[in-house]
Formats: sequence, structure tokens, C-alpha cells
Amino acid sequence: MAVWGERLAGVRGVLLDISGVLFDSCEGGGVPIPGSVEAVARLKQSQLKVRFCTNESQKSRGKLVGLLQRLGFDISEGEVTSPAPAACQILKERGLRPHLLVHDDILSEFDKIDTSNPNCVLIADAGDAFSYKNMNKAFQVLMELENPVLISLGKGRYYKETLGLMLDVGAYMKALEYACGVEAEVVGKPSPEFFKNALQVLGVEAHQAIMIGDDIVGDVGGAQRCGMRALQVRTGKFRCEK
Amino acid sequence: MAVWGERLAGVRGVLLDISGVLFDSCEGGGVPIPGSVEAVARLKQSQLKVRFCTNESQKSRGKLVGLLQRLGFDISEGEVTSPAPAACQILKERGLRPHLLVHDDILSEFDKIDTSNPNCVLIADAGDAFSYKNMNKAFQVLMELENPVLISLGKGRYYKETLGLMLDVGAYMKALEYACGVEAEVVGKPSPEFFKNALQVLGVEAHQAIMIGDDIVGDVGGAQRCGMRALQVRTGKFRCEK
Repeated sequence: MAVWGERLAGVRGVLLDISGVLFDSCEGGGVPIPGSVEAVARLKQSQLKVRFCTNESQKSRGKLVGLLQRLGFDISEGEVTSPAPAACQILKERGLRPHLLVHDDILSEFDKIDTSNPNCVLIADAGDAFSYKNMNKAFQVLMELENPVLISLGKGRYYKETLGLMLDVGAYMKALEYACGVEAEVVGKPSPEFFKNALQVLGVEAHQAIMIGDDIVGDVGGAQRCGMRALQVRTGKFRCEK
Repeated sequence: MAVWGERLAGVRGVLLDISGVLFDSCEGGGVPIPGSVEAVARLKQSQLKVRFCTNESQKSRGKLVGLLQRLGFDISEGEVTSPAPAACQILKERGLRPHLLVHDDILSEFDKIDTSNPNCVLIADAGDAFSYKNMNKAFQVLMELENPVLISLGKGRYYKETLGLMLDVGAYMKALEYACGVEAEVVGKPSPEFFKNALQVLGVEAHQAIMIGDDIVGDVGGAQRCGMRALQVRTGKFRCEK
């Protein structure tokens, strides 16, 4: 415990990943990871500031939070930093009109975005919508652009559902990068801007915060590069051998 | 012409790419590229040895040759070097039992391959069979293997059909490489073994041969690295700007 006391000295804020840390998702719902509902409750009763920092891009924040509430978590939409709203801000600032390759359940996040006559492609964890036809369309849109812009909501390799590991958006990002000869702009973890935004809303400095996640690259590496501390849980996609 | 005479001095054999050089494919068939039927006929009437060297992995050799014959080309199955038969030889030599992620039209090439209890994944240009579900299954098979082996029939970025550019197997190879942290073994152009095999069957040395193709990496670069000459046509996927 003394070691933990040292490691956590000065921590005032906690950023919590969601998938693989709070729950494992499955078709149509999810299952809380044992102890996680109670852990969130205890954190919120403590002196620590808490924010949820997720790369979830298959569901809108509203749907995700609704699901977590039904599973027993004390969480509200305003406590969640997720990639889609961050991407919408970037799209507006830069006058980008995306061709969207996303899951139907997140389309509502882009309600106020002009998608006519696309000048970029935005991909998210589209699940079954990652058909050859849809990927080919995204590829063709990029190849027609003079300055192709590819925005990816996260770049995870895979995540864990109750039935097993599932390919994440990062794999499809790599496919389009290779086919089109472009480099994607990642919105979400491990992008420093994304962590900084979450910290700003939380009102703590990087050195006062700890990120808790199951992804060694997206959560742990990304947070550490921002000057935060980080802790990798042994749930979700955690695998001993890698 | 004097320049061409010098460039082609000592050439005894010609390797011809098929898609984008002889014809552009489309759903259910294809369209010959103007002049190509006559060019093949003239080459075959000349003193030059001719072989077709393709990365076609959506159709079996039999189906491809049947289509080309219907389009008017003088071509037979024995004149074609393609990745599936080369891959079958490798699978047998190394005792590999593949999980196949391929198009139905090429399944017959793997008739004599044991696919029970897979210890590797083999992908080809699967077209619409590159669904999320099928990609995820290939990913899961690789993640379960202690020594994951991924074999890709070619690594092309895209090819041209009559309706436009189409994502090729290379994009999906990159997706699986990234998700699983593996490096694929490529069977087909630009693999040196593949070119060497074609040259051996043709009975000419590398310095006596020229490769004609529309892919600057797969055809031209690959052939040059084997000591062959190469010529890029301005049909198929050729694009001035890239």
C-alpha cells in the first residue's frame, strides 16, 4: 500500500476508460465487469474528480450512457469525453464535409454536420457497416479528392466483447491509409488534444491525473505522453502475452 | 525506335500482367483494352516467349482464362502464373492448414488443401466476402494461434474495374497485420519467388525478360528487383499524378 500511496501522490482527477474497464459490450447490451459499478460509486464519493474518457464510436454518447445507467453505473452524458463530438468541432472549424463510414447508432452525433459534396472521409467503429461496398466507397471518395483527408475516431486494434475479441476501427483506418497513400488524423485516444480536452473539462493538470484503461497504447501510452500517470487494468482486451 | 531497340536488346521473354493490361474487369465479365487482343496475338507470332503473370485471386485460373478466351485472347491455363497454385504448394510444403478468406470463385483452387483445424490464415481478393464478420473471424483465428501466419495472395492497393477503382487485397492485409501485430507473407507479385517461378517455366533468365504491367510496385518494382526489365502501361490503374 505504501508503494501505491507514492504512485498516486498528488492525484486529484481520474480518467476512466469505459469498454473493457467498466463493462464488456455484446450485441444489444453489455455486462458490467465485476466490482466496476461499486468502484465508480466509491470514486465519486471520494475527493477525486472523475471523468469518463472513451473511444467508443459505435454508439452515441446518449445511447452509451443510457446502457451504462441500466447496468447500474452512476454516469451522465456530461461526464463523458468521446471522439464524435470532438470530431464535429474539428469538422466545423476546418469547413470539412465528411463522407461518413460509421455505425447507424452514432449518426445522431453528426446531425448538424453538412455531409453534402464530401471533402473528407470520417470513419468510426462501424461494425457490420464495414462491408466491402462501404469501404470501397470511402476509398473512392478519398481517391477523388485533391487533398484527401481521412479522420478516424480512434485507432484501436481490437476490443473485447463478451463473445471474444473484435476488430476495431484502427484496422480499417490502416486499410484506407495503405490503399490511398494517406495518413489518417486520429480523433480520440491516444491523441494528446483529446486527453488535454478531457483534463481541461475536469479542471486538473496532467500531473494531477491518472488514466485507467485496458489499452496499452490508446490509454496508457497516450496518457503518459501527456504527462499523466496511467494504470492498465487486467480486464477487457488485456492479454498477458502481448 | 532506336531507343526502344536499345532498351529491349536481348529480350527473349515477355511477362504480361492481365488485369488493367489486357482487360478491365466488371461484374460478371470484362472489357478488352483496345489493341490488347491484337498485341497478344502479335507477341505470340513473334520469336518471343510469352507468359501471363497475374495477381488475380478472385477467380480460379480456369475461370479467368475462360473469360479471356471469350474476349478473344489467345491464352491457355498452362500459360498463366497466378498466386493460388503457388500458395497451395507453400501450404503443402509447410504443413499449413489455412482458414480461407477468399472469393467463392477461387475456392476450387484449394480443393486438395486440408482446411481443418486451421494453423494459418490465407486471404485473397475476396471482394464482397470482405465483410466485417469474415474479417473478424480471420482476425480471431490469427489471435488464437501461438505462431500466427498470415498469407496474402498479392498486396495490391487497388485495381481498376470498368466502373472505377476497387480496393484490393493489400488493404485488408494491412488491416489484419495491424490488428494482430503480424507481418503477412505475400504470395504473388512483387514477391521475387513468384517472378522467378514464372521465369523458370518460361525458360529465360531475368536479364532476358521484360514485365509489362500497370502497377508500379507489384509489376514494375518487383520485376526490376529481380533483375528484369519492366514497362508500365498507361491503362488499368495507371494514374498520372501518383
